[in-house]
Amino acid sequence: MGRWQPNSRGRLEQAALELYVERGFAQTTVTEIARQAGLTERTFFRYFADKREVLFSGSAELQEVLIGAVAGAPEQAAPIDAVAAGLDAMGGVLRDLPRSRRRQSVISANPELQERELAKLATLSTAVADTLRGRGVQEPAATLAADAGIAVFRVSFERWIGGPDDGELRRFIKDSLAELKAVTSAS
Amino acid sequence: MGRWQPNSRGRLEQAALELYVERGFAQTTVTEIARQAGLTERTFFRYFADKREVLFSGSAELQEVLIGAVAGAPEQAAPIDAVAAGLDAMGGVLRDLPRSRRRQSVISANPELQERELAKLATLSTAVADTLRGRGVQEPAATLAADAGIAVFRVSFERWIGGPDDGELRRFIKDSLAELKAVTSAS
Repeated sequence: MGRWQPNSRGRLEQAALELYVERGFAQTTVTEIARQAGLTERTFFRYFADKREVLFSGSAELQEVLIGAVAGAPEQAAPIDAVAAGLDAMGGVLRDLPRSRRRQSVISANPELQERELAKLATLSTAVADTLRGRGVQEPAATLAADAGIAVFRVSFERWIGGPDDGELRRFIKDSLAELKAVTSAS
Repeated sequence: MGRWQPNSRGRLEQAALELYVERGFAQTTVTEIARQAGLTERTFFRYFADKREVLFSGSAELQEVLIGAVAGAPEQAAPIDAVAAGLDAMGGVLRDLPRSRRRQSVISANPELQERELAKLATLSTAVADTLRGRGVQEPAATLAADAGIAVFRVSFERWIGGPDDGELRRFIKDSLAELKAVTSAS
């Protein structure tokens, strides 16, 4: 077997998640992750800045999917409906429920990871607000629609994780979005 | 002058904020904060766990005001209107615009403080959702109304900070809440 290893990134992610679930995040070292994946530490650092980032490696891709769909929504779509298109696209990418459950159990057990997760969600929200402004939406409507959308995502994700094994994130997103509209229109 | 110092907490907060603005958060030590306040390090640690917490010492009181008003809203009030009552009460407490501006400039300059700020806001949101459930609001409506409310607070706070010197946070909260309702009902 040569030095090139197929799908090194995926194997490192998989190995890290397994070890974090088994031993806990704090108790796992990069050396152990690399060994478990059958790779070197050097290879690990080629893909990830540190052992925290392994858990958030999908963020950039998710953001791209989200933003792409918000930007690509029909021109006449209301801001919240452009956001809804983005959330639906994210739901289409997040389909591996067992993996999402394992990842979330690691994050929930560690305050530092929770703070990082919140920061990533805030970054998504800022990116959505930027995209909405690019569509001509004024402030504060752009930021409010973006923040409300990310709240819908967060709630839907939690319900998906805690729901039945054959649940689909997209459906929870659709339902939570309807709930948001109901709850904010009541007055 | 005896060993008892009036308003030690307030003086430490004031001294910390001055130094953070002047020199930067990372460059300031607890020793310097205590000296600037004319107090000892020991007194500092009687009030605050570390130099980060000085910036968030008002969180507990704010949460109490917020939760008190949500819980005390008229029984028949819709969830979002109970949240609105809570935000308005917070707006009544946050009246010192120059101080809020200085504090925010320190937080904006430091990613670690930004993460802590997000975590504090998430804690507020969780507390509001708990309170709404105590009022009989079901999930996911409770969490969505709480998250949307905190989004309104965040946006209003930013507009207040960036607005005219005689601006009132309560007014921005009122306006942003109306915007939220408009932006989420559009479909």
